[in-house]
Amino acid sequence: MTDCLGDEAGDMTPMDLYEKLTSQGDTVRTLKTEKAAKADIDAAVQLLLKLKVDYKQVTGQDYKTGCPPSECAVSQDNGPAAAAADGEDMVDPWNVSTTNAKGVDYDKLIVRFGSSKIDQELVDRIERVSGQKAHRFLRRGIFFSHRDMHQVLDAYEKNKSFYLYTGRGPSSEALHVGHLIPFIFTKWLQDTFDIPLVIQLTDDEKYLWKDLSLEDCHRYTVENAKDIIACGFDINKTFIFSDLDYMGASPDFYRNVVKVQKHVTFNQVKGIFGFGDSDCIGKIAFPAIQAAPSFSNSFPQIFKGRKDVQCLIPCAIDQDPYFRMTRDVAPRIGYPKPALLHSTFFPALQGAQTKMSASEANSSIFLTDTPKQIKNKVNKHAFSGGKDTVEEHRKYGGNPDVDVSFMYLTFFLEDDEQLEKIRQDYASGALLTGELKKRLIETLQPMITSHQERRKQVTEETVKQFMTPRPLNFNF
Amino acid sequence: MTDCLGDEAGDMTPMDLYEKLTSQGDTVRTLKTEKAAKADIDAAVQLLLKLKVDYKQVTGQDYKTGCPPSECAVSQDNGPAAAAADGEDMVDPWNVSTTNAKGVDYDKLIVRFGSSKIDQELVDRIERVSGQKAHRFLRRGIFFSHRDMHQVLDAYEKNKSFYLYTGRGPSSEALHVGHLIPFIFTKWLQDTFDIPLVIQLTDDEKYLWKDLSLEDCHRYTVENAKDIIACGFDINKTFIFSDLDYMGASPDFYRNVVKVQKHVTFNQVKGIFGFGDSDCIGKIAFPAIQAAPSFSNSFPQIFKGRKDVQCLIPCAIDQDPYFRMTRDVAPRIGYPKPALLHSTFFPALQGAQTKMSASEANSSIFLTDTPKQIKNKVNKHAFSGGKDTVEEHRKYGGNPDVDVSFMYLTFFLEDDEQLEKIRQDYASGALLTGELKKRLIETLQPMITSHQERRKQVTEETVKQFMTPRPLNFNF
Repeated sequence: MTDCLGDEAGDMTPMDLYEKLTSQGDTVRTLKTEKAAKADIDAAVQLLLKLKVDYKQVTGQDYKTGCPPSECAVSQDNGPAAAAADGEDMVDPWNVSTTNAKGVDYDKLIVRFGSSKIDQELVDRIERVSGQKAHRFLRRGIFFSHRDMHQVLDAYEKNKSFYLYTGRGPSSEALHVGHLIPFIFTKWLQDTFDIPLVIQLTDDEKYLWKDLSLEDCHRYTVENAKDIIACGFDINKTFIFSDLDYMGASPDFYRNVVKVQKHVTFNQVKGIFGFGDSDCIGKIAFPAIQAAPSFSNSFPQIFKGRKDVQCLIPCAIDQDPYFRMTRDVAPRIGYPKPALLHSTFFPALQGAQTKMSASEANSSIFLTDTPKQIKNKVNKHAFSGGKDTVEEHRKYGGNPDVDVSFMYLTFFLEDDEQLEKIRQDYASGALLTGELKKRLIETLQPMITSHQERRKQVTEETVKQFMTPRPLNFNF
Repeated sequence: MTDCLGDEAGDMTPMDLYEKLTSQGDTVRTLKTEKAAKADIDAAVQLLLKLKVDYKQVTGQDYKTGCPPSECAVSQDNGPAAAAADGEDMVDPWNVSTTNAKGVDYDKLIVRFGSSKIDQELVDRIERVSGQKAHRFLRRGIFFSHRDMHQVLDAYEKNKSFYLYTGRGPSSEALHVGHLIPFIFTKWLQDTFDIPLVIQLTDDEKYLWKDLSLEDCHRYTVENAKDIIACGFDINKTFIFSDLDYMGASPDFYRNVVKVQKHVTFNQVKGIFGFGDSDCIGKIAFPAIQAAPSFSNSFPQIFKGRKDVQCLIPCAIDQDPYFRMTRDVAPRIGYPKPALLHSTFFPALQGAQTKMSASEANSSIFLTDTPKQIKNKVNKHAFSGGKDTVEEHRKYGGNPDVDVSFMYLTFFLEDDEQLEKIRQDYASGALLTGELKKRLIETLQPMITSHQERRKQVTEETVKQFMTPRPLNFNF
């Protein structure tokens, strides 16, 4: 792909159709966002589908968002607008929604995104190569999808090291338990493979997207860093950075940002992220900033200028669009593509149709909640797969697949046998909803209390150390 | 790879332009129908008008909706001559062209850009306030337009200081004499008002626009800095920076870039700069990087974090679009608007229809040219306003208004009386073209030789000193 994708159509008719389609996609998306009447949405979707058929008849190509008829860019995902229009689960970095109570259909997402399933063979191989029992997130399919993980392991077996990159957008002071998922898993990877880790806190992104000042965003960054550090990362192997600070501290990081920015067009980010003409230029350029840490020479203090150290990114699947873009650009600027491990979403207390939101107090268990708050929230708000009465429940059993308390236990209860017994007992009706919730409360309370204790130990000085660009305990 | 800025009319076929115009017309209609923000509509209309001008330049016809160029060409009878007769001058950061041998119509440009003319009253006031004779560039209308210069002088009279900001895009190693204009004038302003100066070298811009590597762009930056330093800037009052370096050395600079990026939409940069959907996201976001040095807190090492120090930008008029955008954003992010002083363009040897180009060896006198090369170039290539034969010239006189040698003398010959005498003698026919050229050669040769000598004195160490972020000799 070149910098110069011509956007003029040889023939006006396909272009007209293309523009109609694009605008109809926007209409459908707006209707869905505004939760319009179902009939209206259906009508709009039908028109969209008809236009798609017309388009294919006229052009011989499938319509692709952000890809006018004369362009031939092949992308696996049609972008957020098309996904929503097709009535599929909506998954992009800012929105996750589905109509299914069991949550997003992750197998479909693998097909749509063009990633690979983490199957038993890969889990076994990770155990074999690392000599460690696979983390429960791997055993239970919470990290369910990957890109190039076999390649990472091939190289690792030949003593070629790699590094981990993950991150967070610091939009509030308090994290909820769902935010811990990538960090818990990343810590396990770091301990297991003994490799460097960089953690990007995208305070610039939050400033661009939210109604927050730069100062607020930066303050959240420092507060969030404390929670991340409390997960137990090794200070000798971990570099945490704020974009606002690190961009101004590393010419090499900025150079990589500019390299990516040169090789991605507005058409492409429009297709991948759904940006429009009235979005600010900061949003449009931002994806390059999330891409840059995927390249080892963005951190010369760690990798001594080497640009060939393979990057592995553990993240929630909604971040994949950034890294599809990154993987597309990487070979064109002479860098290896980052590999990825994707997690499912952590469900809101109210159910798995959406991911947790830090802005709704009762949708989440916060890392600052007291044991009493945890108990109340779980008892009051955790969506139950149980039956309406004890009698019915005993007779027909509950449904663990839609029960949020059970889902949470799959994330946090380490013991596989206990978990399986709870599942069976709940499904059979032997375990009541109240008892299931009690098991979850007893699991969360000590976990969060000890997180709070570890967080208290994290001083400003420690944060500063983690966030200072410096060599780590590795020889590259 | 070529530059692929969407609005390079010269590179676009009539059909390309027609399609862009049609689509832009649709955009304007949609924006109006949807009652979009006034700024967005204005920006879209501006682009539409600009495209219409381009269209007429390329096709010699007026744009007509629904009437593509190939179909309508035959029925139209007003050919290219008509377009040339009233086609407007083209002026943006990447293109300057006019059909008028005297050069761009600067009075019209002042109206179109909405700036103010530098009239005799302002020149007199600058002399009064500074206690210095006005620079020849002011006396001769070479700096001809301004924004808010009276406000700068009002404040200066009340002992409120300001700072200067100018710059250059380092796209090649060798500068030509036209490149010196803003620097010669900026040095005079610095000496006259005793104020700090920051000089931005936009190596990131050149990387984004040209087929150059980051390394090349950065190397040109250092080479260009030597020529700039050779103009005689005071090292205690001047900070020169490469974007690629300074972005990675100053979190405050990046913070201002992000602030601007948050407050400018794609619609706006599309209207101002003509960016299109197939432009890379780096170009789209770049204007914020040229805007940021207009705010004093981008340089905390100089202004101790103060954000209220007024900025004055001497530059060629083609850079004004960047600063119109900057002035629009400034109050919305709590900063004073930068003031501006605009210069005319330095004409190519071949004539004033376009500005000099560093990429055409014979269109320019380079700062690396030998006395012999200067002599040959002027004699061979400088467009003459003289008559075809000596006899005719003696009888009818020459035309200094279109004579490039005379124009160059207005830039570089300090003595007003001598210059006026040359003008009169040339117009009367007393001075022949060869004699006029000789005067220019005698003016340029010592000027360039002594520039070369000063440049030789500029060591890598000196460049490094100028380019190190550090306090300057001022108390803010």
